[in-house]
Amino acid sequence: MKKLINQPEDIVVEELQGIAYAHSDLVRVQYNPNIIVRADAPIKGKVGVISGGGSGHEPMHGGFVGMGMLDAACPGAVFTSPTPDQMLEATKAVNGGAGVLHIVKNYTGDIMNFEMAAELAQAEGIEVEAVITNDDVAVQDSLYTAGRRGVGITVIAEKISGAAAEQGRSLQEVAKLCRKVNGQGRSMGMALTSCTVPHAGKPTFDLPEDEMEIGIGIHGEPGRVRMKLKSADEVTEMLMEPIISDLPYKQGDDVLLFVNGMGGTPLIELYVIYRKAYEIAEKHGLKVVRNLIGPYITSLEMAGASITMLKMDDELVKLWDAPVKTPGLRWGV
Amino acid sequence: MKKLINQPEDIVVEELQGIAYAHSDLVRVQYNPNIIVRADAPIKGKVGVISGGGSGHEPMHGGFVGMGMLDAACPGAVFTSPTPDQMLEATKAVNGGAGVLHIVKNYTGDIMNFEMAAELAQAEGIEVEAVITNDDVAVQDSLYTAGRRGVGITVIAEKISGAAAEQGRSLQEVAKLCRKVNGQGRSMGMALTSCTVPHAGKPTFDLPEDEMEIGIGIHGEPGRVRMKLKSADEVTEMLMEPIISDLPYKQGDDVLLFVNGMGGTPLIELYVIYRKAYEIAEKHGLKVVRNLIGPYITSLEMAGASITMLKMDDELVKLWDAPVKTPGLRWGV
Repeated sequence: MKKLINQPEDIVVEELQGIAYAHSDLVRVQYNPNIIVRADAPIKGKVGVISGGGSGHEPMHGGFVGMGMLDAACPGAVFTSPTPDQMLEATKAVNGGAGVLHIVKNYTGDIMNFEMAAELAQAEGIEVEAVITNDDVAVQDSLYTAGRRGVGITVIAEKISGAAAEQGRSLQEVAKLCRKVNGQGRSMGMALTSCTVPHAGKPTFDLPEDEMEIGIGIHGEPGRVRMKLKSADEVTEMLMEPIISDLPYKQGDDVLLFVNGMGGTPLIELYVIYRKAYEIAEKHGLKVVRNLIGPYITSLEMAGASITMLKMDDELVKLWDAPVKTPGLRWGV
Repeated sequence: MKKLINQPEDIVVEELQGIAYAHSDLVRVQYNPNIIVRADAPIKGKVGVISGGGSGHEPMHGGFVGMGMLDAACPGAVFTSPTPDQMLEATKAVNGGAGVLHIVKNYTGDIMNFEMAAELAQAEGIEVEAVITNDDVAVQDSLYTAGRRGVGITVIAEKISGAAAEQGRSLQEVAKLCRKVNGQGRSMGMALTSCTVPHAGKPTFDLPEDEMEIGIGIHGEPGRVRMKLKSADEVTEMLMEPIISDLPYKQGDDVLLFVNGMGGTPLIELYVIYRKAYEIAEKHGLKVVRNLIGPYITSLEMAGASITMLKMDDELVKLWDAPVKTPGLRWGV
C-alpha cells in the first residue's frame, strides 16, 4: 500500500488538522465529535445545511463547508458512516432558528445514523428535514445500500441547497429544491483500479491489468460489469447511455454536465471524457448550460471517473451561479 | 497502461476540445498551432502574459488562462515543449500594444523555443520579456535541464504576474515581479509511483512497491534519492528542510505554502501533508499567510506530492488575493 499517510487510524484527524490550519478563515474544526463548521455559523434566521459521510471522498463533504454551500460536515472514518452524535453536534452548531437540512447519501449506515440524529435534534426543539440522494443508475441495490447509491448529485445538491438557504428560503423550500435536484439528476461511474482503505492495507477488489469495472460504487462496491479496458470514447458512451435513458432526459432539456475524477485520474483524462460526454449530450438534443470537471467526490486513490447530469431550469442555473466560498468550490467572492 | 484516453496521439487535441466545450465563456481554443487564448484577448494597453510547456501537467498551463492570470497558453505534446510557432501565435494573439511576458519553466527545449518565438515576435514589433522559473531545489542539473527545474512556483508566478498585468502595470514591472516571485520561491517533489507517457505505453521509471523517490521531476526525471517508503510526516520533513534552508527563509518571514498533488494522489493525503508542512513552517518561525492545496501542476497519473513555498510581502499578498477567473483557479468573480 503506497499512501502519503502516517498511522491509518490517524488519517482523518490529521486531515482535519490540515483543514483547520489551511482554512480557518472559512471553517472551524471541532473534535470529539469531529465536525467541520462554517466559521460564522450559526447564522440567525438562515436554514442550516449539513451533510456527512465516510472520509475518503474529499473534497466532499468537508471541502464544501462555507458561504453558499454547507454549514457543516460530519466526517466519518474512511468509508464509514459518521455517528449520530457527530450529526447532532453539527445540527446544533448550525441551527440559527430556521431549521436544519440533512443531505444524506443513500447508504444504510448513513441513513440510520442521520435519522437518529434528526430525532435527537427534534427532541431539542430543532426542526430537521432530511433529503436522501440516490442518483447512481448503475445498480438497484448494492453492498451497502437498499436502493440506488447516492453519488455525484450530492455535490450539486449541496451547492444548490446552500445557495437557496443563503437567500433566506424556508426549510421546506430548501428541502423541496434539494429533492428536485436529486430527482432530476443521474450518475454513473467506472474504475480502472481499486482503492485501498488505509486500515485494510490491501486493495478493496482485484482488477486485472487489462480490465475495468463499469458502474462501480464510490467505496469500490461492485458495479454492472467487468470487461477489457476500452477507449475513453467507448467508456463515456457506456456511462452516458444509462444516465440519459434513465430519467429520461429529453430533447431540448438544459443540463449541467459534471465529469468527476475518482482520485487517481488526472485532469487531462477528465477533459477527454468531458469532450465525448458533451458531444453525446448534444447529439441527444441536450444543451449543456453549466459544467463541473474535476475530482469532487473521490474514492481515495481509485483511478476512474463518473458522470453526473442534472436537468436544469432558470431557477437552478441562478442558484448554481450564486456566490460560493468553500475550500473546494469557490466563485463570485 | 490504464488510462481513459483514445489514441495516444489524439490526447492533447481531444483535451483541447473538451476545454473549448467546457470553458467557452473564458477562453477560445485555436488549433494548428494549438493555443488556448483568453476569450477577450487582446486587451488594448494591457501587458499580455503567456506560458506554455508540455501537456500532462494539467491544469497548468491551459487551465490558468483567463481574467487575472494568463492571456494564453501553448500546450505541447505530452511532456514535450511546444513549438516556436505556437508561442509566436500566442504572443500575437494577446498583444494589446503593451508588450508580452513569457513565463518559461527551465527546461532546455522550452527555453530554446520561447527564445526563438521572442525573436520572431520582436521582429514583428512586439516587445517581449521572458522570465525563467527554476525553483526546484532537488537537483542542480537534470535530464532535461541545465540548472534547476521550473516547477510549482510557475503556478504562483502566473497568478501574481497576471494580477499585476490586470492592474495595468508595465511589461518591465510585471517581469520584475515575476522574477521576484521566482527568486523568493522554492519547491521540491516526491513520487510514490511513476507516470506513463501515453505514447511510450510503459512507466517512465520503475519504482518497487515499497519504495519512493525524493526530489523527482515533473516528467519523472531522477531526483535525489530512492528509499523505502516512509510516513507522510517524514516525507514532509524531507521536502521542507531543503526548501527552507535553500533560500534561506528566516524567522519572521511571511510565506505562501503550496502543497501540490502529482495527479494520482488524492486530496485527503495532501491535507495530511499540509498539516505537517504548516507545523514545520511555524516551528521555523515562518508565518503561513496564504496557501494552495490540490493538484495544480501534475505529472499525468503519478502518485506523489510537491511542496512550494514563497516568501510573501504585502504587495504579493494583494496580488495573490486579486480576482482571478480561470478554469483551474477562481475567486473574487
